[in-house]
Amino acid sequence: MATAPSVSYSITVRLEVPASGTAVSQLTTAVESSGGSVTGLDVTASGHERLRIDVTIAATSTAHADEIVSKLRGIEGVSIGKVSDRTFLMHLGGKIEMASKHPIRNRDDLSMVYTPGVARVCMAIAANPDDARRLTIKRNSVAVVTDGSAVLGLGNIGPKAALPVMEGKAALFKRFAGIDAWPLCLDTQDTDEIVAIVKAIAPGFAGINLEDISAPRCFEIEARLREALDIPVFHDDQHGTAIVVLAALTNALRCVGKEIGGLRVVMSGAGAAGTAILKLLIAAGVKHAVVADIHGVVHAERDDLVNADPDSALRWIADNTNPEGVTGTLKDAVVGADVFIGVSAPNVLDGSDIARMADGAIVFALANPDPEVDPAAARETAAVVATGRSDFPNQINNVLVFPGVFRGLLDAQSRTVNTEMMLAAARALAGVVGDAELNPNYIVPSVFNDKVAGAVADAVRDAARAQGPAVAAAGSAALPA
Amino acid sequence: MATAPSVSYSITVRLEVPASGTAVSQLTTAVESSGGSVTGLDVTASGHERLRIDVTIAATSTAHADEIVSKLRGIEGVSIGKVSDRTFLMHLGGKIEMASKHPIRNRDDLSMVYTPGVARVCMAIAANPDDARRLTIKRNSVAVVTDGSAVLGLGNIGPKAALPVMEGKAALFKRFAGIDAWPLCLDTQDTDEIVAIVKAIAPGFAGINLEDISAPRCFEIEARLREALDIPVFHDDQHGTAIVVLAALTNALRCVGKEIGGLRVVMSGAGAAGTAILKLLIAAGVKHAVVADIHGVVHAERDDLVNADPDSALRWIADNTNPEGVTGTLKDAVVGADVFIGVSAPNVLDGSDIARMADGAIVFALANPDPEVDPAAARETAAVVATGRSDFPNQINNVLVFPGVFRGLLDAQSRTVNTEMMLAAARALAGVVGDAELNPNYIVPSVFNDKVAGAVADAVRDAARAQGPAVAAAGSAALPA
Repeated sequence: MATAPSVSYSITVRLEVPASGTAVSQLTTAVESSGGSVTGLDVTASGHERLRIDVTIAATSTAHADEIVSKLRGIEGVSIGKVSDRTFLMHLGGKIEMASKHPIRNRDDLSMVYTPGVARVCMAIAANPDDARRLTIKRNSVAVVTDGSAVLGLGNIGPKAALPVMEGKAALFKRFAGIDAWPLCLDTQDTDEIVAIVKAIAPGFAGINLEDISAPRCFEIEARLREALDIPVFHDDQHGTAIVVLAALTNALRCVGKEIGGLRVVMSGAGAAGTAILKLLIAAGVKHAVVADIHGVVHAERDDLVNADPDSALRWIADNTNPEGVTGTLKDAVVGADVFIGVSAPNVLDGSDIARMADGAIVFALANPDPEVDPAAARETAAVVATGRSDFPNQINNVLVFPGVFRGLLDAQSRTVNTEMMLAAARALAGVVGDAELNPNYIVPSVFNDKVAGAVADAVRDAARAQGPAVAAAGSAALPA
Repeated sequence: MATAPSVSYSITVRLEVPASGTAVSQLTTAVESSGGSVTGLDVTASGHERLRIDVTIAATSTAHADEIVSKLRGIEGVSIGKVSDRTFLMHLGGKIEMASKHPIRNRDDLSMVYTPGVARVCMAIAANPDDARRLTIKRNSVAVVTDGSAVLGLGNIGPKAALPVMEGKAALFKRFAGIDAWPLCLDTQDTDEIVAIVKAIAPGFAGINLEDISAPRCFEIEARLREALDIPVFHDDQHGTAIVVLAALTNALRCVGKEIGGLRVVMSGAGAAGTAILKLLIAAGVKHAVVADIHGVVHAERDDLVNADPDSALRWIADNTNPEGVTGTLKDAVVGADVFIGVSAPNVLDGSDIARMADGAIVFALANPDPEVDPAAARETAAVVATGRSDFPNQINNVLVFPGVFRGLLDAQSRTVNTEMMLAAARALAGVVGDAELNPNYIVPSVFNDKVAGAVADAVRDAARAQGPAVAAAGSAALPA
């Protein structure tokens, strides 16, 4: 797979060139002949002899960016000034902030926002704790909680190094759903401690988004918190991924004209995302699923499963998949399969494996940045191919899901999040792609499609309310005009 | 003490009146004759027969506001519409929000703010955790942490009911010092749990502001967190109050021409604020202090102290005050004293007690809303009187302190906060009142004096840096331009 230049490896180079007729074209030629893309060019100062130019360049990697700068340095008469990395520049001082909704201009403002006026609001909530949903930020706040144990594909890099991801997540919550999220990066990876901490901080939030917590601890943490709390707890790596996969599969099936109940689905990966995808697919009607992990196909008689903890995720998979008792390797299992879903590791399959799948094969190769199978090779025989990457069609991206899901949960003042709500979210997301737009290269909408979050939110809110007052408030959580 | 109408008990009444020449004056007369103040009046619709008017009224209490509305209702031809409580209106949906610093307009923005670009920033911090101060919100973030056990003067009203205060605090951090604070209201009052939780959430913050946690747990929680964390932990109810009291005392002494070392100081109250004030006054040079609590003057032989825990705050007071071994009541102790500082309960002294103090007496009666002694009575003989109330001169208000203190700590990237920094903060705050402005009714600046936070911040930052690299970063934490 050739990698295209990306703004995520984007630099701005300040340089001076002789004021000759070919100065600018020499620069852009040098960048492009090195495989970079010029994404912006400003002449910031111009004299008779010299020009000062800021040129912004997308590269494929940090090393590639350095290489391009060397090439520019080699042009006669060019002097290189400051080289700025645009992604790092955007992160200086952090990406989010706290903002006050009301100006505090004078003593009168102060006496209402703070003491003494605030005391009456406190007493109202003390008398009726549900009023916290009306009179405080609880109404619209979500905690983004991580322990830094499984950050993106980077592994256990710890809470401080996880913070840029959590800030980004908070920024996306606001951008796509108007939700006020704040990151909490925990300096512990102890399951009991994480459960105790999240329980304790819950009063100020209307939802908990667990993020980048490694399996299997994430299963227990989420289950115990759901049991303990009266606000929804959603592990996005599991359920966000599962919802967008189910939506994408729903639309892929519209393309190939198959029904979910008859599919043979093969999955690679039995971690947090894989387990959640599997459970949601089964809830949606998948009857024939086979899961492979690093040890091959999961089945009840496999050595490591015979004595496995009956509560383990792998045991659940063994008991709820593979009714035919298939054994062997992933490559064996995909022969004749209708659907392959990978949430595992790069290049576990090749084009010849995909060629042995059934007609109208659907391939979701979601390992990032390098998919389970080269999507170009998969496309030679598969009917629909999706990845987690933004530089191929059909990007399976959680950003399509979590903002709308939480918006719906918060609008319903939901006390939980459950399978019915997730199925509703997946249906709504799939439904955003109309029949006229649907094709094998467009099974999920763009994350910038402004119908997405609203459609998902409405579906989740309605599904929550349909479950009655034990789950969600019947009325509107909207504020009076 | 007569209570003046306050905007914190402020209502807006929508009403209709006949379009006669005296309609408006009848309204305002009714409000004022009931003891209310008209603070705004808008004619929102006008016809030949009727006017629609929104009138905003400050009252002294909720009951008083109801009484004024009844009086308005009694005017012939007036019909009352919606009555809105302005303080509650300001609280609807909460007072603060999360804001993104960068627009997320397209896939390029997304790839830098979030994946895949964010991964490089994460890896940079994983390689050098100190970079979290540069590349994340940690640089400018403070957690406002409470367990809701001692909220304002309202007592143990719990975490949800405490939230409006913590939101207000966060709003003030931003307004006065540009700090991003987020409230964490904890659903536990267990000391060990609170310590564990605050330790765990610390990676994402550059400082911890403990708030409204009851004594004596607040002492242990703060001490253990200071020991454990590499960011400053500041219990505002203790140290914010202590700093502003020391600043006010410094300026009161300028008024009466006394030196701190020779003062006889009598305090009422041995709780969190009282203990912290006492310790800071001793650090500042007070040599003769006597403290009284509800059982009378604290001395080493008092029944409840003979066998007290040697680590208790009261034991510390007994061991470090009252060198003459004074016994008896608060009223006995104040005879001949230079300074009275009350952080206790209303009306424990009267004017005759103040009259028995030394010449040039200084009285800080800080119980809220009702001071230890009627300030009007105290002023008959005392040279300087201060309270915690905004409707008397010399309001002792923590808002003068905590924004600047944290701004200084954050700018120095300080790992702690200690007595030297607090003394510097008090000196700086006192110094904001110039010789030309200083008088017995103006010993502390207004909270809206825009020199205050900067002066306190500079002093704290310099004091932190002066303690060397083990305490604070030498360089500037300012971002590159």
